[in-house]
Amino acid sequence: MAVRIMKPAAYKQEQQLDYGTEAQHDAVKQIVAAVAEQGDEALRQYTKQFDRMEIRDFRVEETVIQAAYSDVDKVFLEALRRAADRIRSFHEKQKRLSWHDSQPDGSMLGQLIRPLKRVGLYVPGGTAAYPSSVLMNVIPAQVAGVKEIALATPPSTAGEPGINPYILVAAAELGIQEIYRVGGAQAIAAMAYGTESIPAVDKICGPGNIYVALAKRYVYGKVDIDSIAGPSDITVLADEHADPSYVAADLLSQAEHDALAQAVLVTASPKLAEQVQQEIERQLESLPRKEIAARSLADNGAIIVADSLDECVDTVNRIAPEHLELLVEEPFALLGRIENAGAIFLGPYSSEPVGDYYAGPNHILPTGGTARYASPLNVDDFLKKTSLIYYSKAALAEAGPDIMTLARGEGLEGHARAIAIRLEKEGM
Amino acid sequence: MAVRIMKPAAYKQEQQLDYGTEAQHDAVKQIVAAVAEQGDEALRQYTKQFDRMEIRDFRVEETVIQAAYSDVDKVFLEALRRAADRIRSFHEKQKRLSWHDSQPDGSMLGQLIRPLKRVGLYVPGGTAAYPSSVLMNVIPAQVAGVKEIALATPPSTAGEPGINPYILVAAAELGIQEIYRVGGAQAIAAMAYGTESIPAVDKICGPGNIYVALAKRYVYGKVDIDSIAGPSDITVLADEHADPSYVAADLLSQAEHDALAQAVLVTASPKLAEQVQQEIERQLESLPRKEIAARSLADNGAIIVADSLDECVDTVNRIAPEHLELLVEEPFALLGRIENAGAIFLGPYSSEPVGDYYAGPNHILPTGGTARYASPLNVDDFLKKTSLIYYSKAALAEAGPDIMTLARGEGLEGHARAIAIRLEKEGM
Repeated sequence: MAVRIMKPAAYKQEQQLDYGTEAQHDAVKQIVAAVAEQGDEALRQYTKQFDRMEIRDFRVEETVIQAAYSDVDKVFLEALRRAADRIRSFHEKQKRLSWHDSQPDGSMLGQLIRPLKRVGLYVPGGTAAYPSSVLMNVIPAQVAGVKEIALATPPSTAGEPGINPYILVAAAELGIQEIYRVGGAQAIAAMAYGTESIPAVDKICGPGNIYVALAKRYVYGKVDIDSIAGPSDITVLADEHADPSYVAADLLSQAEHDALAQAVLVTASPKLAEQVQQEIERQLESLPRKEIAARSLADNGAIIVADSLDECVDTVNRIAPEHLELLVEEPFALLGRIENAGAIFLGPYSSEPVGDYYAGPNHILPTGGTARYASPLNVDDFLKKTSLIYYSKAALAEAGPDIMTLARGEGLEGHARAIAIRLEKEGM
Repeated sequence: MAVRIMKPAAYKQEQQLDYGTEAQHDAVKQIVAAVAEQGDEALRQYTKQFDRMEIRDFRVEETVIQAAYSDVDKVFLEALRRAADRIRSFHEKQKRLSWHDSQPDGSMLGQLIRPLKRVGLYVPGGTAAYPSSVLMNVIPAQVAGVKEIALATPPSTAGEPGINPYILVAAAELGIQEIYRVGGAQAIAAMAYGTESIPAVDKICGPGNIYVALAKRYVYGKVDIDSIAGPSDITVLADEHADPSYVAADLLSQAEHDALAQAVLVTASPKLAEQVQQEIERQLESLPRKEIAARSLADNGAIIVADSLDECVDTVNRIAPEHLELLVEEPFALLGRIENAGAIFLGPYSSEPVGDYYAGPNHILPTGGTARYASPLNVDDFLKKTSLIYYSKAALAEAGPDIMTLARGEGLEGHARAIAIRLEKEGM
């Protein structure tokens, strides 16, 4: 039995944020301090120690990036370009302008809304390279107007160029030429503090292993970070009109990510629950990543049978899923009752992979129930605001007494005097 | 000599983020765990231990809140109301709407932009109670549409009601009735995990001592937090047209906050530098918080004399001040060259206290150079986004092959099959 069927009350969501062990904390603390102090020298040493590579130049040469094109499937590249266009188009709609508002009293207030100057993106190494994640991270930053985007990814001893060609090509397609062969906590430290080779950034994005995650937590405050992502999850809310084979396929597409991934069906139809359970068994048989998916479903999967659609909705809001599919007769009618979800996929043809790769919205979404308060990666994440305050002489004359009252009420006479000295000198 | 005069190169900004001691970390970890497990019982115990108070009901009674009005100066209250109106008006302009975009191919994409459900605000206790901070924290949340806002503040043995009446009245003026007498790390833990008396929130805002700051860092991920604020800072960029007495008064109004506050003048006029130094000496004499201000100026203050206006601007951008005053002949002409600042005050009548209390923009601003990437507290901080994805049968038929190519290129066959099964079944 690949997935257990249970009642809503029996479903306990795991808090899966990994805060690491003491030993991991200490290792990260030491790595960050060493890189902050010794720069490239420390980077070379850790790369030798952890990646078993001797690196002279961290910067990946432009010729290497161009050469990667010959290792990339042309059909894939064409699809990637079309996906990039759609992702860019969706994020363009999020752009914002600085604004101001001038009042008759002579005051002017506003917000400057401007891009960050320099952003670093971490791209994990290993066999599972995700060029789609390069698009999803880089495009919102570019649309925001970020001029400098640097990418760091661990080098590998497995053949030349030692970096997945799909990653290099995805970056090149977006015009990113600043790529560094460095990984782990040392890469995060380098981007936060800067080294001789790698200028410091203002914000670090991208996923990684526990060392990368701890390093991001550690440097937060010195630079901004995107978020600490947990395992991916999906909740499918389906009624008796849903095709069980679609539901099963969508749950499996989440479960194949890794054993910690969480795939959940919520339904008020016991019949659908059983059909989906059988379909999962059937489809699982021939899935290449069958073992990972089976483990994920057994450990973290669930088919939750509620008594009513209302109870289904309550359960979904409690889970606050990263991905929510509404496979019900009238998905748009449910929208106003969904309080918490990273992305909502409506109807039978909006399978999660449509959003993972192609439709345009970001696939970097709040995991582990954080959709209660967090949002998909978006253009705002690469913008900063600055308040503007202009007061004319007349505006200050009018507001001055109130400001002094408030300052003195809080015991800050110096604040009051900064106003008083102006009112006196100007005879206001 | 209250403030040193120096060259730009000699000015080293202190990284003032306090990460606490090991002992403080351990204490906070233990407090958070105890409150998460034992709820009110642990809250009562810590309140007895740290605040020397025996608390039966944490919730402040409505009668107590109403009674606070009799302890509040009427003139102050009127000024506070006018300030609240202006703050609300400025934040109303930041509101955003959900949007969607429908394409001819039958797809629809969009963003739901909605308020968080429940927010907790921490208000420090002690003698320096800042009702203005209650306005600055609560109003953006209310404008965003947050329905539930809870306030926590430490109880005091100093007379009834044990909570500063100005805090109670500021909250009541905004319609906040849910106020708890609990402080420190235990208050943060209670808002993050919930107890019998205090329902858990989705986001925690507000300043506090090192225990509060560490507890916020610790619960981040379980809930969202606003930021970890450091000491306040101001940089005044002034030219020879500036009135030295205004510059001095504004620097002093920052320095009086606390000894760690940082007040800096940047100018290309050696004459102004000397005049301001003398004015500071003169004005300091009669300032009630003279000792604090003098310590702040001696330890963290600076008068930086640059060779040119260009060098002034570079210095300001390197400092990335929380508050920036442009006391120059043409302040608006400089605006486009200022890259990093939390709030910019333009011209001689826009003294920082205008923004601290009254004009409308938020006074909760990025400190310690974080204006490179962070923003003033604003309405967006209380909104969350959810992506919407609807694909029709026709839209999926067109996009399907590309999506399958991308999924298979990343080795995720299960993702491809979630699309394939639909294309096959529907004969697309």
